[in-house]
Amino acid sequence: MARRLNVAVCQTGPIARAESRADVVARLIALLETAAAGGAELAVFPEMALTTFFPRWDLTDPDEIRAFYEREMPGPDTAPLFAAARRLKVGFALGYCESVVEDGRERRFNTMVLAGRDGAVIGRYRKMHVPGSEAPEEGVTVHLERRYFEPGNLGFPVFSFEGVRIGMAICNDRRWPETYRMLCLNGAEMVLIGYNTPLLLTETPRLAHLRMFHNHLPMQAGAYQNTVWIAAAAKAGVEEGQALIGGSCIIAPSGEIVALANSLGDEVIVHRADLAMNEDCAKAGFDFARYRRPDEYALIAQAAGPRRPATAG
Amino acid sequence: MARRLNVAVCQTGPIARAESRADVVARLIALLETAAAGGAELAVFPEMALTTFFPRWDLTDPDEIRAFYEREMPGPDTAPLFAAARRLKVGFALGYCESVVEDGRERRFNTMVLAGRDGAVIGRYRKMHVPGSEAPEEGVTVHLERRYFEPGNLGFPVFSFEGVRIGMAICNDRRWPETYRMLCLNGAEMVLIGYNTPLLLTETPRLAHLRMFHNHLPMQAGAYQNTVWIAAAAKAGVEEGQALIGGSCIIAPSGEIVALANSLGDEVIVHRADLAMNEDCAKAGFDFARYRRPDEYALIAQAAGPRRPATAG
Repeated sequence: MARRLNVAVCQTGPIARAESRADVVARLIALLETAAAGGAELAVFPEMALTTFFPRWDLTDPDEIRAFYEREMPGPDTAPLFAAARRLKVGFALGYCESVVEDGRERRFNTMVLAGRDGAVIGRYRKMHVPGSEAPEEGVTVHLERRYFEPGNLGFPVFSFEGVRIGMAICNDRRWPETYRMLCLNGAEMVLIGYNTPLLLTETPRLAHLRMFHNHLPMQAGAYQNTVWIAAAAKAGVEEGQALIGGSCIIAPSGEIVALANSLGDEVIVHRADLAMNEDCAKAGFDFARYRRPDEYALIAQAAGPRRPATAG
Repeated sequence: MARRLNVAVCQTGPIARAESRADVVARLIALLETAAAGGAELAVFPEMALTTFFPRWDLTDPDEIRAFYEREMPGPDTAPLFAAARRLKVGFALGYCESVVEDGRERRFNTMVLAGRDGAVIGRYRKMHVPGSEAPEEGVTVHLERRYFEPGNLGFPVFSFEGVRIGMAICNDRRWPETYRMLCLNGAEMVLIGYNTPLLLTETPRLAHLRMFHNHLPMQAGAYQNTVWIAAAAKAGVEEGQALIGGSCIIAPSGEIVALANSLGDEVIVHRADLAMNEDCAKAGFDFARYRRPDEYALIAQAAGPRRPATAG
């Protein structure tokens, strides 16, 4: 029996600071309806798909900050999206800002929730690689994710969605090869990714023209090297004066981009993913159990950064 | 002070089974002279640059097999190459088949030796990821590297070459993200790679058109994700009836291919690598010590292959 999953990427255009949750959720439902009309069984929305990308600002008002986070998922504002999923029979992954009481205190994570075709929550992922800084730094584009979010504490989980093993990753996670490898070793066949990626980084002018290349390169390599499908959704366009790249895409386990958004607005792309492709690609040299050398990779799980200088010579 | 290293990739065309070591070494010396004329300080030759790629054959005659290996490096046949390095003041990395007595027995490795601008040996690397099989397998292109070579036992060492930290990798190693990450964590600034890659794999027809893409993709991602330079040399062209891809290249830490061979024969490409580029690229989000989560990557160093089925859901 051919195993296939019809997956949609629901890219969104910018979300204004003043846009209400109700208005945003209505946009997401419209995208989910388009995905359903295209035959999708599963859709992925961007990182922080309910709000503007506020880590671009050095905010200090606690109430203003608090308003960006969800305390329940689904909650009153987001329940209509879960109801739409049930009605349309399309599951989804949704990036949002999570506030939760754990260990007796409020904790904040950059999170993605996975919901089934019945609109029930299947599981959550919390962004493991949180970029940026706690406070503005001289000469560096303001990006205060590490003020607003803790690094994730749920590892790299894999969930069954209609019998397909699904992992999730969020924005900066996609740049690190360990993300895909951990999900692969946990059994993932498909990785859903959401991102908000500024077009301009003032600190690296000679890399400025490479933002889209650096978006696709690690995802294509991650798909190829781990023989997984990837479906990645951008929040795109000029949001509160900051340009975000698009380039939402679906990538086969061959590393090929098989579907690509070509706008900077709300847009849906769909692909009927053939899960036999994973095995075909594994046959092209990626028999992990036979060829990998885990005993030789200890440093990857021990040292955060490079040991310098050289070990010999 | 600007740190730069002029690096050359010396691609070779096919090497016939009957070609003598003396003839091959003469070809390599001619390439090294071209590299020197282009200002190179360091040159990289392909994997198994002294012989034909014999793992394509199911050989049984011990004497015939033995003749492909070097027992000394430099030895009588290869000493002229080291002398040329000293004369030209160009160091090199050379892939060859190594036979060595270790642990009281003969052991065989797919090895690359690094020599300095004075022609002296700096260090060696032994291929860690040995692909193929011990015996021919039904429906799979014959590739018996695992009969002819043990997996390497020297880890992922990094050596100082004129103050630049150099790692090496061989052919299939370049497909595994752990190779680049281990070299990066060991302090590498530049990775030298040699390869012999058949154009056709009969077992994966729907990937057949992607051989060059799958050559460059993991190397470009490896350069980008580890902020290292890569210089990669193919043995190319139709060798004993088997087509090998070319595509030798030099890749910047941005992942950009900055020099590319465009023949399938003996060819030299040179690039003056700016080692400040490594730091520039690291600034674009790759502060490893700050953002990596080694404690969360344990499985990478524990499990060879995927755990299935899904862990949850």
